Amino acid sequence: MIQMTLDQVRELVETILRRHGFSEPHVLAVAGTILAGERDGCTSHGVYRLPGCVATLKAGKVSPTAEPEVFDCAPSVVRVDAHGAFAQCAYLAGLPLLVEKARRTGIAILAINRCVHFSALWPEVEPLTEQGLVALAFTPSHAWVAPAGGIRPLFGTNPIAFGWPRPDKPPFLFDFATSAAARGEIDLHRRAGKPIPLGWGIDQDGQPTTDPLTALNGAMLTFGGHKGSALAAMVELIAGPMIGDLTSAESLAFDEGTRSSPYGGELIIAIDPRRILGAEADQHLQRAEAVFEGMLGQGARLPSQRRYEARARSAVEGVRIPEAMYAEIQALLA
Amino acid sequence: MIQMTLDQVRELVETILRRHGFSEPHVLAVAGTILAGERDGCTSHGVYRLPGCVATLKAGKVSPTAEPEVFDCAPSVVRVDAHGAFAQCAYLAGLPLLVEKARRTGIAILAINRCVHFSALWPEVEPLTEQGLVALAFTPSHAWVAPAGGIRPLFGTNPIAFGWPRPDKPPFLFDFATSAAARGEIDLHRRAGKPIPLGWGIDQDGQPTTDPLTALNGAMLTFGGHKGSALAAMVELIAGPMIGDLTSAESLAFDEGTRSSPYGGELIIAIDPRRILGAEADQHLQRAEAVFEGMLGQGARLPSQRRYEARARSAVEGVRIPEAMYAEIQALLA
Repeated sequence: MIQMTLDQVRELVETILRRHGFSEPHVLAVAGTILAGERDGCTSHGVYRLPGCVATLKAGKVSPTAEPEVFDCAPSVVRVDAHGAFAQCAYLAGLPLLVEKARRTGIAILAINRCVHFSALWPEVEPLTEQGLVALAFTPSHAWVAPAGGIRPLFGTNPIAFGWPRPDKPPFLFDFATSAAARGEIDLHRRAGKPIPLGWGIDQDGQPTTDPLTALNGAMLTFGGHKGSALAAMVELIAGPMIGDLTSAESLAFDEGTRSSPYGGELIIAIDPRRILGAEADQHLQRAEAVFEGMLGQGARLPSQRRYEARARSAVEGVRIPEAMYAEIQALLA
Repeated sequence: MIQMTLDQVRELVETILRRHGFSEPHVLAVAGTILAGERDGCTSHGVYRLPGCVATLKAGKVSPTAEPEVFDCAPSVVRVDAHGAFAQCAYLAGLPLLVEKARRTGIAILAINRCVHFSALWPEVEPLTEQGLVALAFTPSHAWVAPAGGIRPLFGTNPIAFGWPRPDKPPFLFDFATSAAARGEIDLHRRAGKPIPLGWGIDQDGQPTTDPLTALNGAMLTFGGHKGSALAAMVELIAGPMIGDLTSAESLAFDEGTRSSPYGGELIIAIDPRRILGAEADQHLQRAEAVFEGMLGQGARLPSQRRYEARARSAVEGVRIPEAMYAEIQALLA
């Protein structure tokens, strides 16, 4: 393993993105989310993503320089056109107006359009909780997942993220795919020559399989049966057509077999509890702490607990990157 | 089975509610949702609920006459204080302002407070889809469900409902508990002397059980493991403290062992896609139909399909109520 400080990781990531022609705003914004993933121990969303970023660029499926354009659509709606670039700059461009609208009206929507999305959703939820807002985020991906009762890929892995601000503590935050497992996780099983659990995928005839490649070529399944499938459909709709953007099937068609990151929209909803609760806000938000105590007091973990522990550790100890991965990243400098 | 027309069911339900002292607005609103459940083949939310309504009244846990009070809190927030009555009148009182706000700002919140909730959530989502709005609804219940990794009841069955308007078709609509099964379903197994599937509940020591009574006295489980548990926590927060109302644990404490319906809040979010999409709205909403066709074309059902089929059948054939249930309801007239 290669031991690195967070500053060293940031510098390496920024250097690679610059070398490949990303403009400075994109270099800083994209490096920010990759660093956050590595720092929080989400290795599948850390430097592991860099080769994919560069491959997506080389396939012509992401703009390295496009500047986001912000549209003030309605008192509670802001849209940002990413013009084919990664989502991060568009998010940062829309964030101030989203926060202002949520504070003014109580609840507001940020719709990011025509963006390429490769990161987790929590980096787009956590900044809102730091402003005292409750936040939700949704995005389709590529059509890899069959609906419950079906056998062919239709939905993306369609993640849902939710964040709740806590006084003097990191937010209560979850971020999960509505598929039973992440696609990367199935691929890691394939690389390791290990079977996948039943329930993760089916073959092309709709039969259950434990072979990762068969599942990747067949269809992934949603978590939680028909309920998870219903949520996956909801994400397709509200972060696709509802914001004027692609479904996962349309994103995969746009991909043209280049195996690039998904292209389309992202929906973020921010709520200001103080506009609902008025003068009683502190009292009620304090009462929410009993829910977390009720979980922790019986041995249940809070969803992002491991991530926050990794974050605290990384700040002191830095991070460790597997040698093979480090070599793959260094090769991007060549 | 007793065969009845929908008009006969409505008249019977209204007569019973009047007999027990509900004011005319509550009689009409509550009978409306009970009739809708019976009509749509949701027997667990039809006339089956009448004895519970009356029992909740007799226990002093619902007001039969309180008038809802509407508060215009912010450009995108309306709150309605139900003053301890059933939720239906409060919902109807807040609906026009919710629709107006969603149309004006793009997205709006209706928070119903201090209401007693016994119905499904879809009757509060479907009217919004009829206005061309996308809608979400959430409510806590009583603390019956353990968080993933825990062993003691903390969450309610905490349903989530979502509705999407379709041109010239009934809406795409789902409404499900974040618990693995409905509490009533476990109770029906107990009455029938049948075991429940593994995964529905645990005993008081946290061990898996297939005995319904053991699960009812232990804890129910969430659907979909830690993901369903995270969603259940979200519902506790956003339809509890975020709108200044009770958590499921607080609702159960308020119940004082009377086995009444849950007491607390309900959160409804309405979105006007036309304020996001402008002139391109029709084109994008039409594109959403491909998602439904993609589901139906491979043999998957749409979530409310069975309900709409039952609705069409009931309009022609009426409904059939088991004799024992009919006798129990008739006894409420005595």
